[in-house]
Amino acid sequence: MDVNSDLGESYGVWQLGDDDAMLDIVTSANVACGFHAGDPSVLRAACSLAVERSVAIGAQVSFPDLLGFGRRHLAMSPRELRDAVLYQLGALDAFAQVGGSQIAYVKPHGALYHATVADGALATAVVEAAAEYDPSLAVLGLPASQLLRSAERAGLEPIAEAFADRAYLPGGGLVSRSEAGSVLTDPGDVAARAVRLALDREVVAIDGSTVTVEARSICVHSDTPGAVGLARAVRSALDSAGVGVRRFTG
Amino acid sequence: MDVNSDLGESYGVWQLGDDDAMLDIVTSANVACGFHAGDPSVLRAACSLAVERSVAIGAQVSFPDLLGFGRRHLAMSPRELRDAVLYQLGALDAFAQVGGSQIAYVKPHGALYHATVADGALATAVVEAAAEYDPSLAVLGLPASQLLRSAERAGLEPIAEAFADRAYLPGGGLVSRSEAGSVLTDPGDVAARAVRLALDREVVAIDGSTVTVEARSICVHSDTPGAVGLARAVRSALDSAGVGVRRFTG
Amino acid sequence: MDVNSDLGESYGVWQLGDDDAMLDIVTSANVACGFHAGDPSVLRAACSLAVERSVAIGAQVSFPDLLGFGRRHLAMSPRELRDAVLYQLGALDAFAQVGGSQIAYVKPHGALYHATVADGALATAVVEAAAEYDPSLAVLGLPASQLLRSAERAGLEPIAEAFADRAYLPGGGLVSRSEAGSVLTDPGDVAARAVRLALDREVVAIDGSTVTVEARSICVHSDTPGAVGLARAVRSALDSAGVGVRRFTG
Amino acid sequence: MDVNSDLGESYGVWQLGDDDAMLDIVTSANVACGFHAGDPSVLRAACSLAVERSVAIGAQVSFPDLLGFGRRHLAMSPRELRDAVLYQLGALDAFAQVGGSQIAYVKPHGALYHATVADGALATAVVEAAAEYDPSLAVLGLPASQLLRSAERAGLEPIAEAFADRAYLPGGGLVSRSEAGSVLTDPGDVAARAVRLALDREVVAIDGSTVTVEARSICVHSDTPGAVGLARAVRSALDSAGVGVRRFTG
Repeated sequence: MDVNSDLGESYGVWQLGDDDAMLDIVTSANVACGFHAGDPSVLRAACSLAVERSVAIGAQVSFPDLLGFGRRHLAMSPRELRDAVLYQLGALDAFAQVGGSQIAYVKPHGALYHATVADGALATAVVEAAAEYDPSLAVLGLPASQLLRSAERAGLEPIAEAFADRAYLPGGGLVSRSEAGSVLTDPGDVAARAVRLALDREVVAIDGSTVTVEARSICVHSDTPGAVGLARAVRSALDSAGVGVRRFTG
Repeated sequence: MDVNSDLGESYGVWQLGDDDAMLDIVTSANVACGFHAGDPSVLRAACSLAVERSVAIGAQVSFPDLLGFGRRHLAMSPRELRDAVLYQLGALDAFAQVGGSQIAYVKPHGALYHATVADGALATAVVEAAAEYDPSLAVLGLPASQLLRSAERAGLEPIAEAFADRAYLPGGGLVSRSEAGSVLTDPGDVAARAVRLALDREVVAIDGSTVTVEARSICVHSDTPGAVGLARAVRSALDSAGVGVRRFTG
Repeated sequence: MDVNSDLGESYGVWQLGDDDAMLDIVTSANVACGFHAGDPSVLRAACSLAVERSVAIGAQVSFPDLLGFGRRHLAMSPRELRDAVLYQLGALDAFAQVGGSQIAYVKPHGALYHATVADGALATAVVEAAAEYDPSLAVLGLPASQLLRSAERAGLEPIAEAFADRAYLPGGGLVSRSEAGSVLTDPGDVAARAVRLALDREVVAIDGSTVTVEARSICVHSDTPGAVGLARAVRSALDSAGVGVRRFTG
Repeated sequence: MDVNSDLGESYGVWQLGDDDAMLDIVTSANVACGFHAGDPSVLRAACSLAVERSVAIGAQVSFPDLLGFGRRHLAMSPRELRDAVLYQLGALDAFAQVGGSQIAYVKPHGALYHATVADGALATAVVEAAAEYDPSLAVLGLPASQLLRSAERAGLEPIAEAFADRAYLPGGGLVSRSEAGSVLTDPGDVAARAVRLALDREVVAIDGSTVTVEARSICVHSDTPGAVGLARAVRSALDSAGVGVRRFTG
């Protein structure tokens, strides 16, 4: 099982998250590419630290929206999106390469992540950019999303992820953040769910039913108070349970 | 002799220059990287056209300043500049690669071009980014500039350029644009100067004296009215004079 | 009848439209506020020229999207939108005031214009900003739009506009730009439609039926080739037909 | 004696400083205008809170540079700067007005603050924008700066400020931040210096000599760890010493 998290989200004078601490916990780093967060020096630092700790670097591509942190949908055409993603892949990869590695996968951020779950044209645009940049890139996203289907069709490795701290619907979808109980905060609960996801490929949904979730990576959050503690609890529990935590990429 | 020009300088709805026409004239294209001009789709189109015509692609890196078109100095630290240049190199190279080529050289734009003539720290920052990205990149700039000296020291190929449409000082520097007579506009004059630069490595300075200018590339402008006509005159004259016009890179 | 057009849409080195020529034709200028176009010096020039010609100044507020020229919907919350609109109103009004006038009305631009036709929450957000900034502002938009209804409810003067160069549906809506025949380009036709809109409050729809369009302003475009000629034809025809062309604001 | 501080410096998801706490301490709030920090909703909140606490609102105008937080000099022409300042004044004033007040003064931020100490043309550009926007605006800056001289010449009220936590040179200038001992951090020391500045118009310089500093406002920082504590110590000491702490504006 891989553990991934969003990093490189500071910008200029503004700090967000604790990249240094998180890079001791995760095996894959979704590094911002400057469109929703992350200035060039932040990208360099994040990539350099990731390489040092043998953490895989993924490009967390986004709509161009610093003010909204990439969380607001922007009605780009598929062609505009493809080109914007390609720009971000190249930019981030420069830092990964200079750090001694290269980007290993793509994961859309925020509103683009949500959009590519159901919108086939946008999903295809993201995958197209990845495929033309480097067909050995993996694509990280929700199981059964248009994004992973597009990746598969394009011959890119699709990697499904699960969320240990999010409530699930009986059908396998996530409970919307706007609903009560959508986010779990107790480290013990979250860690236990992570272990069950890893060992049994299942999670208890919000209605008490058991849902199968086939995932090769667990996403832990980095930008909330207590994020580091929660992530550490997940990692420790996985390690203790004998789950081999390792990056999904070579 | 190589002929270079600034391209990819449109942005969204705003058009600037005629990339298509210029790419029939030049052998090296200084393509904007999105910091002073050029959105991702503009970069793709410019790189794609350049590859089609076997024109070398250079990264025209800049201070981040769309409103000022990169013509206003921004007091970045050398470290900030190095990282900003690296970001731009990677971003543009993605389009060059997808187009079937790769960036071949770096040329600073506008205020950064001027700054790296005399400021060794900024020149070094640009060269450092180029060297760590790809040591086979050439660096295009003014003869005897700090930029070319830094390139040489770092083991990158320095390429000196001359301007057929700019008045020269007796010492070999350019007459400032703010002075009368600094820019030549007569196509015949400009073409004749280009030929003399190519064949005799010299130009008549503003005081009538003859100045030696060792240059491997001649820069022609793209963003003024009449730019295409002037560039075409230069190219025709060079061709007619038997100057082999070809890209300086392999 | 008032005639309005979008102005102030240049940005830095990039020129768009011919503000000077259009300000001799229109009676109301929808001036960009810097979010989709228009830098501070462009805003100053547009406002100064408008005041000189006694043209009313309207704030053409937009989603923040220079690259997309405000033509791409951005999923802002109503609260974010209200604050973004207020920011733009204040910024533009500074130039209107310094020019010796003040902003007289608000007209959303591009994707925001389209969004506020049907989306009551976004329409209300725009109107709220206008009402709290200056309740004497008018609001310019499509007849029967949510925007004009919100304005009416808030006690702001709603001003309906018509398009002389756009094909209408039998129900009074506009034929989408993506359909053939949606945009008329013959100056004689367009001018005749403008006169009929002004005198008879009607237009011939795309199916040949006659539609009533109650409008107090006719919008003419500024950013297409031939825009000035078309606008001039409309204005001349209105003047010749004895339609009193004057700004709708005092 | 007035106490001023920089506020409204958060941006989107990124938080900076504690506006709420600082507004209980200061009498004048230098509110960012969106060019170096502060999005529209941040501006609204800051202005609304300031009005609630009867704190004067000043426009902290800046070079356009979010990434550099306005701390990097940008070589704008005086005309560009004047227009950029006017844009910011109008934008912020919209929020001040909607909050029930209006902007009372202008204070340049970061690199623009430093530039207007010695550069008469830039100082004049800032003052020109302020004067044409509202001649009743005060201008806050360093004693004997070009900025305050320009303000005086233009008929705007110049307000000199002092820094209780910065080391002074014998001539009355500030010791550069890059030098050791330039910033004082002990709350007792800083508070004592503030009282002496207020009561005796003097401060002990870094060489032990006593310097006269005529100031009507004391600036306390908001964006460093411990800023609130230091500011509170200054305010308490001033209050205890019987210095009437009140805003310099009516």
